[in-house]
Amino acid sequence: MSNALKVTAPEGLPFVDFEREFDAPVSAVFAAHRDPALVAKWMGPDGYEADMTEWDFRSGGNWSYVHRDPEGNEYGFRGVFHTVRENEFAIQTFEFLGYPDAVSIESMRFEDLGGGRTRLSGHAVYPTLEARDGMVASGMETGMREGYDRLEALVTA
Amino acid sequence: MSNALKVTAPEGLPFVDFEREFDAPVSAVFAAHRDPALVAKWMGPDGYEADMTEWDFRSGGNWSYVHRDPEGNEYGFRGVFHTVRENEFAIQTFEFLGYPDAVSIESMRFEDLGGGRTRLSGHAVYPTLEARDGMVASGMETGMREGYDRLEALVTA
Repeated sequence: MSNALKVTAPEGLPFVDFEREFDAPVSAVFAAHRDPALVAKWMGPDGYEADMTEWDFRSGGNWSYVHRDPEGNEYGFRGVFHTVRENEFAIQTFEFLGYPDAVSIESMRFEDLGGGRTRLSGHAVYPTLEARDGMVASGMETGMREGYDRLEALVTA
Repeated sequence: MSNALKVTAPEGLPFVDFEREFDAPVSAVFAAHRDPALVAKWMGPDGYEADMTEWDFRSGGNWSYVHRDPEGNEYGFRGVFHTVRENEFAIQTFEFLGYPDAVSIESMRFEDLGGGRTRLSGHAVYPTLEARDGMVASGMETGMREGYDRLEALVTA
């Protein structure tokens, strides 16, 4: 698929970079990040349910949610939106409550490619190389791929 | 001075680590970070005035301030407190508005050394090596040293 997710974890640097294009306008991709009812539909691996405890997608706003896997195990996450610029850019902190205090920070760019297409690219920065490697080893890329595939389905429906 | 500031910027990693001890109890060092009227007295290089626009030192709270140098030049900063645990630990984002969107994340540990002494240690993570190097080149260490010397004077007064 031409819109395939690309994820890069550079050797020796505590970063994860990703890029994904969508056959949908930037306003739709952005709205799917802003509205918690939409976020709950696409974020995370297939088969998980999301309970969006808080989702205030604006500069200075807080967020938290709980993911429930098909066996009923729960995984909590929380963070803060440092910057949100509509249809353009966001920066947020990110913490998995099962690995507390290893908080990463991630920027996301929403880019209008014209023709009703959008490029979403992100740069996540971890407090240590080990935290980055642990996140990658946890199945991050699969969860992102499945989530963005569901996002694509949502915004092109 | 035995309480001297130690700053480390490791080669090839986008981190700045620091450590500083204080001849004051952890509750006093923590209070000097929580109370904006106290923060204004010690943060930043000597000779600067701070206008604390916002300082909500708790998990999810926002902060911003403007530093004014002796020539009247103004420098704005803002961020969000991701985590604050009293007398123990804090994580915050940090943005210099003159270099926008290069947002770092910093954890700070407040450690009770007994005998009315405290160790403060921090780990700051930048989105790129270049942003880290630019921050170090801007005189970060001098500003921190002068600031923590004023903090020491404040909490031992």
